[in-house]
Amino acid sequence: MGQIMKKTLLLATALVGALSSQANAQSMFEKPEDAIEYRKATFQLIRYQIGDMGDMLKGKVPFDAKRFQQRADSAAALSSMPWEAFTADSQKGDTGALPAIWSDRATFDKKAEQFAKYAKALAVAAQSGDKKEIGPAFRNWAKGCKDCHKSFKD
Amino acid sequence: MGQIMKKTLLLATALVGALSSQANAQSMFEKPEDAIEYRKATFQLIRYQIGDMGDMLKGKVPFDAKRFQQRADSAAALSSMPWEAFTADSQKGDTGALPAIWSDRATFDKKAEQFAKYAKALAVAAQSGDKKEIGPAFRNWAKGCKDCHKSFKD
Repeated sequence: MGQIMKKTLLLATALVGALSSQANAQSMFEKPEDAIEYRKATFQLIRYQIGDMGDMLKGKVPFDAKRFQQRADSAAALSSMPWEAFTADSQKGDTGALPAIWSDRATFDKKAEQFAKYAKALAVAAQSGDKKEIGPAFRNWAKGCKDCHKSFKD
Repeated sequence: MGQIMKKTLLLATALVGALSSQANAQSMFEKPEDAIEYRKATFQLIRYQIGDMGDMLKGKVPFDAKRFQQRADSAAALSSMPWEAFTADSQKGDTGALPAIWSDRATFDKKAEQFAKYAKALAVAAQSGDKKEIGPAFRNWAKGCKDCHKSFKD
């Protein structure tokens, strides 16, 4: 085999490897339905954290600093989870996700990143156990829901 | 009003307050179905973390230390979440949870705590980026699924 042929083969092998590794890196979902299920489960759990923290801040249930911390920690972890599940092949299906997610991915990703960042800040604020510190951090994070749904959710 | 009557009233008020606060502390779920939905969503997300980390360790997808860390961090957060959702009123319904959870709660809680602990240890091990350290930590955590399902899941 000639040197050029060998080099071409090596290059092709490396390229295929890189592409399949990238494909793997992009998604752990075998089917589009899996990705939809995953992001829905994540948002569902996020809603419960928001609900309970909101109730505590509004005084609908007694404020409990330990419980609030637990919710905020869960919220911080969950808020970075759903985004990878908006895979290219999961635009259609049992989903309220709007096409804008895929046509304006940069804006979507920016809002997602901001949401995750605010959730982390809330978890830090929760450590103070002080409602005056927690309230604004909670509102920053929670308003991220509406802000993103407006453009990207049916 | 006599002193004894006043004291009795105060005591009764305090007692009702304590009980309702305890009830709130026990559950954020309005309906049994909410609790079932919550724990199912949590376990579903846990399964994805296990699946992807297992695939990376088995070499089915390339091992990526950063991606593994992300999964392990999510796993650590998720592994402490479902347990509060095994509320007293959610034994029946669309659930594979066995009555033993409620009749032998101490054993269930112990296994749940162990599972959460092993998940945290896995997240720490993942920081090493070293499969030799991560492998045993992963297996400790993952075997907790079967171990608990054996006694407590249909």
